[in-house]
Amino acid sequence: MPTPTRNLDATLAAIAPLDERRRAAAWTRLDALTKPRRSLGRLEELAATAATVLGDRRGTKSVLVFAGDHGVAAEGVSAYPPEVTAQMVANFAAGGAAVNVIARQHGIDVVVVDVGVATAAPPPAGVVAARVARGTRNMLREPAMTAAEARRALEVGIAIAEREAARGVVMIALGEMGIGNTTAAAAITAALLRVPVASVVGPGTGLDAAGVARKQEVVTAVLARHDLDATRPLDVLAAVGGLEIAAIAGACLGAAAAGCLVVVDGFIAGAGALVALRLAPAARPYCIFAHRSPEPGHAAILAALDARPLLDLEMRLGEGTGACLGIALVETSLRVLDEMATFESAGVAGRRDAGADGPVER
Amino acid sequence: MPTPTRNLDATLAAIAPLDERRRAAAWTRLDALTKPRRSLGRLEELAATAATVLGDRRGTKSVLVFAGDHGVAAEGVSAYPPEVTAQMVANFAAGGAAVNVIARQHGIDVVVVDVGVATAAPPPAGVVAARVARGTRNMLREPAMTAAEARRALEVGIAIAEREAARGVVMIALGEMGIGNTTAAAAITAALLRVPVASVVGPGTGLDAAGVARKQEVVTAVLARHDLDATRPLDVLAAVGGLEIAAIAGACLGAAAAGCLVVVDGFIAGAGALVALRLAPAARPYCIFAHRSPEPGHAAILAALDARPLLDLEMRLGEGTGACLGIALVETSLRVLDEMATFESAGVAGRRDAGADGPVER
Repeated sequence: MPTPTRNLDATLAAIAPLDERRRAAAWTRLDALTKPRRSLGRLEELAATAATVLGDRRGTKSVLVFAGDHGVAAEGVSAYPPEVTAQMVANFAAGGAAVNVIARQHGIDVVVVDVGVATAAPPPAGVVAARVARGTRNMLREPAMTAAEARRALEVGIAIAEREAARGVVMIALGEMGIGNTTAAAAITAALLRVPVASVVGPGTGLDAAGVARKQEVVTAVLARHDLDATRPLDVLAAVGGLEIAAIAGACLGAAAAGCLVVVDGFIAGAGALVALRLAPAARPYCIFAHRSPEPGHAAILAALDARPLLDLEMRLGEGTGACLGIALVETSLRVLDEMATFESAGVAGRRDAGADGPVER
Repeated sequence: MPTPTRNLDATLAAIAPLDERRRAAAWTRLDALTKPRRSLGRLEELAATAATVLGDRRGTKSVLVFAGDHGVAAEGVSAYPPEVTAQMVANFAAGGAAVNVIARQHGIDVVVVDVGVATAAPPPAGVVAARVARGTRNMLREPAMTAAEARRALEVGIAIAEREAARGVVMIALGEMGIGNTTAAAAITAALLRVPVASVVGPGTGLDAAGVARKQEVVTAVLARHDLDATRPLDVLAAVGGLEIAAIAGACLGAAAAGCLVVVDGFIAGAGALVALRLAPAARPYCIFAHRSPEPGHAAILAALDARPLLDLEMRLGEGTGACLGIALVETSLRVLDEMATFESAGVAGRRDAGADGPVER
């Protein structure tokens, strides 16, 4: 079981405010490069964000894929049977899943972590063994996790992020696998943001309308079953979360505490990030939200976090697939910052009304 | 001067309809891969499109950056002076521009073509010398090009696309550089689509409101000066186009005739593609539109071509920067198609209601 150097409380305390002088320096350089000012649009904003987190540090990139099962899957909330979680972990280990393919394209290491797959078998070779429990309990009947389990899963995430940072990783993408986990993400979202269940429940891996209706009933009953307080994110996480969602929250915090850029995938990773950022709002500037999922609950999370995703490709697979595409865009933005010539170095003339700035859209 | 194997007419005649059996085969494979059906959203549509064009062919990628100057720049329609075109060509040759940086990241060759820079000096080493004229004439006073010049510039584009295809390139991104070319693109768009000038003129490289108003006046006067017939795209191109825009149109046609996937950048490349697709609607299925430019005229082109860009990052630089990001996404989609495991090969269980398809959003 990976153990963090800093426990949860020490990690929360270690998340430092960013040095805004870095942001100003990045914009000064961006505005000197051979392109009309701000003409690379959101790529320039991304460069400024990444440079504010990283300064001059450049390093490797990894995607963390946390896997866990969900007791609530017994309620028929997913189009797929629970054994798919373990089977997909084996597929990740063999390199055959979508996240492996996309990560390979962009030079991103894939780190698969079994934080709670519901099997007695050990995880396959190459997968980090960190199983806090064999899946969560059925949250329709009892809390998904004990407080201790939720904390241990969080600290698995912290430990993995610390380990990645220690070996030179500077950008960490957060992804997941877990049959039933859009149900947990929906419950977390409704509870923490106090929004209606109907606004956060969607088809997940492909439920039909009757399946979505059933899932809404389950989430409604889950929320009625537990006495949740939106101001107590750890309690919400334990009652209606997932082991992989807890680990994502921990990895988000651990990565921020280690000064890494955090690149968040879609709805489920977003729910993990939401828990993390309710625990530590100071981690928000370390986070990039890679893509917009069609799952309706994601929109609520993005709005609550004032996040505008980079991509909208109707991806709803998870695993960190969207986050890997996000990392590629961050990489682009930093290469622009680092490698482009300036007007001065390239001998390119400036604007005819030199000194004017022209319209800037931020 | 590069000379095409096929002239314009032969190129138009050589653009073949796609084999739709390839598309069906791609969807069959995509639906067998270890992910919920259609859960990679637009990446799967992109894989199907690319595989329909390419079949099993995989090869290298290049971005063609056509550079040309515009006589109409004398009317003060750009925030930058005309000499920036030649200076940026030198910057491309030295590898210091944004398109160089982004192309390097994604393994895309940069091919810079001087099809009409307004200088007596020869183009820098590494740049394809194909100068049809030293810039266009001022279209406020006379046609920008003669019919013969426009055709020669088109055939430069055809020749470059043919050359790229012959050396194993299968994806061709279309980009450009030319001070004043949003004015030409706006005039082409207004003339071919019969839309109001105000709906196609924007700030370009960074005009202020007064500059945009001035540019609108110029484009309005240009359109009044010439007797343009929207059903005669070559005449429109010659009267109010640009040498680099003509070359882009030619490259689009030449690439489609050679069976390459065409990845179109923003507004100016879009205007070139619009000319090409008015000449040869059969080329449309070979084209991907990479990103949405904030230039207002781009929306009109995209709507007319029923195109939905992949990215919306507020990029308005041109050069092929957005098209290079588009190529990276096409590459992702083809790797997913080629490299992912299937449910069968990975031993992953299918849906509980096996046989059902679930909701599919297209």
